[in-house]
Amino acid sequence: MPELRKDPITGRWVIIATDRAMRPADFIRESVEPKGGRICPFCPGNEQKTPPEILAYRPEGGARNQPGWSLRVIPNKFPVLRVEGELSRHGEGLYDRMNGVGAHEVVIETPEHTATLGQLSEKQIEQVLWAFRDRILDLKKDIRLNYILIFKNHGESAGSNLEHCHSQLIALPVVPKRVREELDGAKRYFDFKERCIFCDIARQETETGARSLLETDHHLAFAPYASRFPFETWILPRRHHSHFELADPPAIQNLAWVLRAVMRKIDKVLEKPAYNLMIHSAPIQEGSMAHYHWHIEIIPKLTRVAGFEWGTGFYINPTPPETAAQFLRDAGLV
Amino acid sequence: MPELRKDPITGRWVIIATDRAMRPADFIRESVEPKGGRICPFCPGNEQKTPPEILAYRPEGGARNQPGWSLRVIPNKFPVLRVEGELSRHGEGLYDRMNGVGAHEVVIETPEHTATLGQLSEKQIEQVLWAFRDRILDLKKDIRLNYILIFKNHGESAGSNLEHCHSQLIALPVVPKRVREELDGAKRYFDFKERCIFCDIARQETETGARSLLETDHHLAFAPYASRFPFETWILPRRHHSHFELADPPAIQNLAWVLRAVMRKIDKVLEKPAYNLMIHSAPIQEGSMAHYHWHIEIIPKLTRVAGFEWGTGFYINPTPPETAAQFLRDAGLV
Repeated sequence: MPELRKDPITGRWVIIATDRAMRPADFIRESVEPKGGRICPFCPGNEQKTPPEILAYRPEGGARNQPGWSLRVIPNKFPVLRVEGELSRHGEGLYDRMNGVGAHEVVIETPEHTATLGQLSEKQIEQVLWAFRDRILDLKKDIRLNYILIFKNHGESAGSNLEHCHSQLIALPVVPKRVREELDGAKRYFDFKERCIFCDIARQETETGARSLLETDHHLAFAPYASRFPFETWILPRRHHSHFELADPPAIQNLAWVLRAVMRKIDKVLEKPAYNLMIHSAPIQEGSMAHYHWHIEIIPKLTRVAGFEWGTGFYINPTPPETAAQFLRDAGLV
Repeated sequence: MPELRKDPITGRWVIIATDRAMRPADFIRESVEPKGGRICPFCPGNEQKTPPEILAYRPEGGARNQPGWSLRVIPNKFPVLRVEGELSRHGEGLYDRMNGVGAHEVVIETPEHTATLGQLSEKQIEQVLWAFRDRILDLKKDIRLNYILIFKNHGESAGSNLEHCHSQLIALPVVPKRVREELDGAKRYFDFKERCIFCDIARQETETGARSLLETDHHLAFAPYASRFPFETWILPRRHHSHFELADPPAIQNLAWVLRAVMRKIDKVLEKPAYNLMIHSAPIQEGSMAHYHWHIEIIPKLTRVAGFEWGTGFYINPTPPETAAQFLRDAGLV
């Protein structure tokens, strides 16, 4: 019998096809292997092919926009939003619009063209996380901006056009509806229970263990109960913080270890799949919240979203999260 | 300057990239050309390869599950939900689940293997619409079912595995969250204005004409103001009805003509793209609503949904709906 499961935060239902659980080998998928060969604007030596850098880490010093960096943040050459200008909200009959004011940046995570996130060292991943934090803390000063999404599209089928290892940051003038839904859902639970729902989830997942991939003193990696996608994986900090940028150095260090381990498990079990990774964090202009808890969501690209999902927002997941977690858990530390 | 536009019904914002509007030739896409050749369970003569039919139209009579049909409805051989059993809602710690009770049917729209929706005759399309209505009216009697989605995945990249022209119907025990959001958004507008927002949209789109593709006495086809996807197209009946199954014969006849014309325009301008088509209609167990208005949404599959969309529910649309509408309008009646 298939199961309907409800996401406890957003209230979204998911169909889990328990009868004919799809295992890793059942998915037709892209194996992402960066090959290089073409001139890459993100490679050292090509700094002039990108807009001037916003931030770079140069452990041994050196000039701006020159080689010698271990990580580099640049404005997106084809931004979906622009930093300059006023919002000028206005109507068009019954419709509403405003100017596309915001920021769109690229974090080049390593100078090495063919490395992927799972292949970076713990130190390199830690550096990427610090860059995310540095950029959020800087952009937060611009009060026109209300929400920042940091995300990674890895592989063509996950929407990436450039193979050199990078993430993106988009800062928006409005808090997106899906984020507001997550915040509101968490708030409703808090009003009822006086506890953070994410803290409760961490507790229950640790106790049952059935969907757990990996646990440390600081973090828990698990397959969420109402996973929308096969092998969907969340990383949840144990310590409650609504904002990613408030994570402290020991937590960031540990997160680098956990993220690396999770990506290596995913790469092993699913043979280097394309994936999307997103940091869910509270709106940057709002204060600390007892009811919301930042976390990372990783979605390997194994299935296609089709008419049913577009029409209902209901998802059909052919792999129960318990099965996915077992595969990833059994992969060990690779 | 890119524009942010708000969907007036759901409140979802969309980024419309007005600077570098992508035109039809700019998209890398699948051209869907059914080829045949393999044994198809939906072709006449192979009726035994599918579960027994639920409904079939046989203009010249004939036996059940035998050739001679012009349209055939069957249960999905691999259903995501099952008709038998109780819902038995229960908890699992803080989580909620129920059994996957529902229906999953396939409408085989023509006996001809290689025909696509745009290539069917008006009469054949009308027959498909009648089949949708007949199935909804029948399933409505089962009070465990609360919502029915009728949808079509056309082409592999839109999630279709079988090339023979077909639609699907999924009946759910709960009203999906996205549908509830659309209903609630429309209700808020109605409470404020005492008018249906869809009726107002039809009025404004007819007046401005900038996003209009096609108009008849009964229907309006247009590119919605806050289109999430390039060349997204809606068909809206002029006469207010919350439920698709309440449309009357003249409206259904006209809809067949409009749907055919729209699909032919899309096939011409975008070179037979893969697409998803969904009928948005009110929950089957709820009475007529003054605030909700059924309609059809068509999404050609031209772009990939990536980390930003998954993380925020915000969409980036590289083709302004005014540009899309102009291309489709200019294609004439093909």
